[in-house]
Amino acid sequence: MKIAVMGAGAVGCYYGAMLARAGHSVTLVARPQHVAAVQARGLILETKAFTEAVKVDAIADASGVADAEIVLFCVKSDDTPAAGREMAPHLSAKTSILSLQNGVDNAERLQDVLQRPVIPAAVYVATDMPGPGHVRHHGRGELVIGAGPASVEIAEAFSRAAIPTDVSDNVIGVLWTKLIVNCAYNALSAIPQLSYGRMVEVEGVRDVMQDVVAECLAVAERAGVRVTDNLPATVLGLAAAMANQLSSTAQDLARGKRTEIGHLNGYVVRTGARLGIATPANRALTAMVKLMEAKAEG
Amino acid sequence: MKIAVMGAGAVGCYYGAMLARAGHSVTLVARPQHVAAVQARGLILETKAFTEAVKVDAIADASGVADAEIVLFCVKSDDTPAAGREMAPHLSAKTSILSLQNGVDNAERLQDVLQRPVIPAAVYVATDMPGPGHVRHHGRGELVIGAGPASVEIAEAFSRAAIPTDVSDNVIGVLWTKLIVNCAYNALSAIPQLSYGRMVEVEGVRDVMQDVVAECLAVAERAGVRVTDNLPATVLGLAAAMANQLSSTAQDLARGKRTEIGHLNGYVVRTGARLGIATPANRALTAMVKLMEAKAEG
Repeated sequence: MKIAVMGAGAVGCYYGAMLARAGHSVTLVARPQHVAAVQARGLILETKAFTEAVKVDAIADASGVADAEIVLFCVKSDDTPAAGREMAPHLSAKTSILSLQNGVDNAERLQDVLQRPVIPAAVYVATDMPGPGHVRHHGRGELVIGAGPASVEIAEAFSRAAIPTDVSDNVIGVLWTKLIVNCAYNALSAIPQLSYGRMVEVEGVRDVMQDVVAECLAVAERAGVRVTDNLPATVLGLAAAMANQLSSTAQDLARGKRTEIGHLNGYVVRTGARLGIATPANRALTAMVKLMEAKAEG
Repeated sequence: MKIAVMGAGAVGCYYGAMLARAGHSVTLVARPQHVAAVQARGLILETKAFTEAVKVDAIADASGVADAEIVLFCVKSDDTPAAGREMAPHLSAKTSILSLQNGVDNAERLQDVLQRPVIPAAVYVATDMPGPGHVRHHGRGELVIGAGPASVEIAEAFSRAAIPTDVSDNVIGVLWTKLIVNCAYNALSAIPQLSYGRMVEVEGVRDVMQDVVAECLAVAERAGVRVTDNLPATVLGLAAAMANQLSSTAQDLARGKRTEIGHLNGYVVRTGARLGIATPANRALTAMVKLMEAKAEG
């Protein structure tokens, strides 16, 4: 199949590389320095098992999505509307569009821009980019994608490419589950730059995580979302399973990058305000990350 | 009068110096490096109007409170019980003890240790110590002290020493008012190390401050405390009046010192838990400062 990755950062490069290795024709739409590196030597995919230069096309312009049967939309949540508008004139009628992004409403926001269906996907993968055109895989890689006319066919093709992919009729519930875990960990790890294991040992932190989860569940319930897990237990278990992990928000802050906090705890705050649910713990964490961003801007 | 300052940091040195200048006999109980500096050249009091070496006694041992008619108890809140026990054997029956500390329950905690009355005092002064035996005055200096047999006499003596001092039958309400202002500013300024003026301009911060104040007022009301001010308005006004101020908690964190957060937002959290009032915003701010302390400890 012909597949384009719109916004090929670490996540998009990983899935693009896996699909290209399985024989699909992959085009990355990425920043110029990544495009140059990929054109020069291929996309370097480094996993625990192998390191390989994968042959893919790369272009800095959104016209790279032209003729794609599938577009993996992987930009940062703040960039969803702008990237959607850039991509829109180049999409063909038969293109399936998947949103592989953090937060729960990116598919909906992109759909509003494009005025056509977008399939939400929950992404479970740990990757980073140590340099231009070089993606490192640290663990996992599975997807849960929403139901749609092409979803089963996409899931089968992806699974054959070693991307375990399930179709769910409750992908929004799956995305909320992931969101709530992120709401409990991301800011609290980011602000002091502490790993999950150390962070949960600090006095009072588990109480705050429970407040955060309870607020999120109240908002989800009022929003009619069916969350897919026994979350309070899952959330606290994660600290042991990922003791050395720093949150993506922590990594963004450490690099002086804008975080996605407005699409994590900040999204819960806005949705709570709309639905009449108080979210003081999420509000405090959101503001604290914004304060750290303001400090970094000097 | 014979006056001793137990725990002569910036606040204690300032009041000790002012009383000594007015002719009282003052003994500072302080850390050895301060004692050595004061014995060598007097206590340097630097104000915007003058700089002067003030003659006071200084000693590193709690026996320095012996024979004092008034003890100004100025240690950090965490040190209240230990400093009380050290001082106890040296107190005479006629000594009046004033707690000039942050938080609202230090006088009560000291009273429990000493098994005798302690007069709470609300302190409004900006001071720091740029070096051993050297205190700088930046502004204000007034006290509100609790009612007791000696309070009016003490207030008159202090006022004659250019320390404007009022006696209040609601000093606990006054202390809570000050506590609530600190709860709204200290942690939010400390964590990003931003001044009050910059901090309140960041998106969502005023909302969090309102959550914090509302929780504090609910706890105070349930505790039967009569708060003395229109607090939501006072709190937001302070950011303009003290735009360049960093909180004391911010200064403690910046110096790698343990903060008093457990006696500020942390006190509200504990009191709320005891009285059945939820305090998620105060809980989040307390945990965040504890996380920063844990990070600093490495």
